[in-house]
Amino acid sequence: MSEGVAFAPSLVTATGTSPDRGATTSVRSVADAALAWRDGRIAYVGAAADLPDEFAGLPSTRVGGAIVPGFVDCHTHLPFFGWRADEFEARLAGVSYRDLQGEGGGILRSRRLLAGAADDEVLAFCLPLAQEMLVHGTTALELKTGYGLSVDGELRQARLARALSEDIPQEAVVTLLSCHATPPEYTREQWVEEVCSTIIPAAAAEALVDMVDVYVEDIAFSVDDLRKVAESAARAGLPFRCHADQLGHSGAAEAAVRMGCRSADHLNHAGPEGVKALGSAEETAAVLLPVSTLFLRADPPPVADLIDAGAAIALATDFNPGTSPCLSMPEVVATGCSLYGLSTDAALAASTLNPAWVLGLHERHGTLEVGKRANFVVLDSPSFAMVPYRPGHNPVASVWLAGEPVS
Amino acid sequence: MSEGVAFAPSLVTATGTSPDRGATTSVRSVADAALAWRDGRIAYVGAAADLPDEFAGLPSTRVGGAIVPGFVDCHTHLPFFGWRADEFEARLAGVSYRDLQGEGGGILRSRRLLAGAADDEVLAFCLPLAQEMLVHGTTALELKTGYGLSVDGELRQARLARALSEDIPQEAVVTLLSCHATPPEYTREQWVEEVCSTIIPAAAAEALVDMVDVYVEDIAFSVDDLRKVAESAARAGLPFRCHADQLGHSGAAEAAVRMGCRSADHLNHAGPEGVKALGSAEETAAVLLPVSTLFLRADPPPVADLIDAGAAIALATDFNPGTSPCLSMPEVVATGCSLYGLSTDAALAASTLNPAWVLGLHERHGTLEVGKRANFVVLDSPSFAMVPYRPGHNPVASVWLAGEPVS
Repeated sequence: MSEGVAFAPSLVTATGTSPDRGATTSVRSVADAALAWRDGRIAYVGAAADLPDEFAGLPSTRVGGAIVPGFVDCHTHLPFFGWRADEFEARLAGVSYRDLQGEGGGILRSRRLLAGAADDEVLAFCLPLAQEMLVHGTTALELKTGYGLSVDGELRQARLARALSEDIPQEAVVTLLSCHATPPEYTREQWVEEVCSTIIPAAAAEALVDMVDVYVEDIAFSVDDLRKVAESAARAGLPFRCHADQLGHSGAAEAAVRMGCRSADHLNHAGPEGVKALGSAEETAAVLLPVSTLFLRADPPPVADLIDAGAAIALATDFNPGTSPCLSMPEVVATGCSLYGLSTDAALAASTLNPAWVLGLHERHGTLEVGKRANFVVLDSPSFAMVPYRPGHNPVASVWLAGEPVS
Repeated sequence: MSEGVAFAPSLVTATGTSPDRGATTSVRSVADAALAWRDGRIAYVGAAADLPDEFAGLPSTRVGGAIVPGFVDCHTHLPFFGWRADEFEARLAGVSYRDLQGEGGGILRSRRLLAGAADDEVLAFCLPLAQEMLVHGTTALELKTGYGLSVDGELRQARLARALSEDIPQEAVVTLLSCHATPPEYTREQWVEEVCSTIIPAAAAEALVDMVDVYVEDIAFSVDDLRKVAESAARAGLPFRCHADQLGHSGAAEAAVRMGCRSADHLNHAGPEGVKALGSAEETAAVLLPVSTLFLRADPPPVADLIDAGAAIALATDFNPGTSPCLSMPEVVATGCSLYGLSTDAALAASTLNPAWVLGLHERHGTLEVGKRANFVVLDSPSFAMVPYRPGHNPVASVWLAGEPVS
């Protein structure tokens, strides 16, 4: 049905198209609610008792749990090919993530795995994962390159991401993360130059990507490399973002704000300057990846400081085979609340509206409001608080895209 | 089928009936494996190529992932009635768990909820949860009292636990935790006396419980109370255990060893004496509850020290509405590995053999060996490492009890 009404014991949503900031959330909660849609777009949201007569004749359904916006996962590393559970075991035995990167493991291993797989093998590996994301309530997501790591490899991975996005029911944004690691065939400087002068222009010319990302870290790229890539992205008309201050402090958070990044992600070692910059940044969200923090046994980011400063916080899976093999946004919300102390309202905004804004999807996704797409999740309980309260449990009873039940 | 053979790409199991200790595990891994059973008990486990002819004619199945022993959850607070997600939200807003206990929340609130529900309501609430545990691979578990908190209430909850155990396919052990909190109608001393002189003898006489537990904590009961309860349990012929050093240090860990407790659970604040005692304890396992640690944002127990000392470590959910609303053993294994750094082999033993030993089920449960019950889990991948590697994902493809597929 492209038109219909859903009645629910409760409906909870952030509101607006600007990200929620700090402790201020736009969360609206409606008891005995109705959500109506036409042509797959929301036409009414509010109390069932106030539903206008014009919607009374639409096909209707009554659900037992809360209706909430579909989750938006704004930081994933799909498409990739193959797991790296053995590296996880090595880390438990005491080998560091940095060391694994140097020993042919890590990102360069995923490059080899991706390069060794045919296109249809990659898609066959990724499709069930995207489907499992859907079953866990993710209705829009990011896909990223960064395992191609050659000119042809990156463009191929971007095409695979586009192909994947066409094969899945969710809307997906493709990000070019060619500066994820330096291919051994290049020096770092040569690779940044190749990315800026060849890959970004080619990807933009073919309309393969929607955004550009850089991994700023002592084992990866510098703040100056970020500047070069950001300038190249801007020339190509593409927004950009960065991985900032994950394993160590590099000043990437404040640099991200200064350069106009759409987001600074990870932030485990962001310092006071970064926190202050993100707190007053109009154009830069702070993307937190709590499952990767737990998975790497890393120091947590300064979450309370970011909230106090007024930063726009998003939560995402960081789904990837090395540092966060988790694709469930409910699990991320649970880990974010318990590990970082986020309130449930903040976690709702951080998993719906704010990540939709990061991906540039905020006009259509992220909240349940008239005119936005009727993408929603029905929980198995009337309260959103049950999502972070029950780790290891999938709280999603059903998922609807443009008013159609898809899971 | 009460007899049959399963062929799998791999089979992984701890071995024996004594718990694994420290870094020493008895884990055995077989590639291209076969598991055969007759009358619901394992008759062969090993390489498929070596399967004796006598089993060749049995009904057979071929599975795609690893066969591992069913998980044993040795610390749960089922049966309970109702969630307490609002207290979780209050904690995220800064209220402490200790304060919630004092304000009519916490354990005494669960007492009110349980007392206000009819028996069939309680069972209707708990049955789907036990089913969800089964779907996540739990094939044997503990049930506990501790929300009755009156003479009649505790005996009623024990009867409800027995009734639940008869209604679920898993084998369950019932533990009397009357010393969970002091009912407001009693002083602590009066309640301990009531438990020792009335409840334990009555529960034993009616064969309602298999074990006795005490919550040793400054907001609950003392080490001296533990001694009294342990003596009463011993008189009734029941094994006993305790919650030790969770919120603060009380010396309960070393006391548990001294008194012959079957386990000391939580251990977040166990000191060097407790670690040393558990390291050389023949009769006392260290039960770790990592999800409650994360959920309460608590200090982790001294896990590396416990392993170095040679302690027998078990992992459990602590499933309860206040401090660990998680019923998934895969989630516990994932959290235990990432948060505590347990190796995957140690985590396997700690979620199968060792908890079976804690519950006194080690002759029939916990490993895949000839003579034990054919309770096993088929994973969705050939490697057990995928269980802790993928938090928020249920890795269980199917569950078999006594050779019958049940999920």
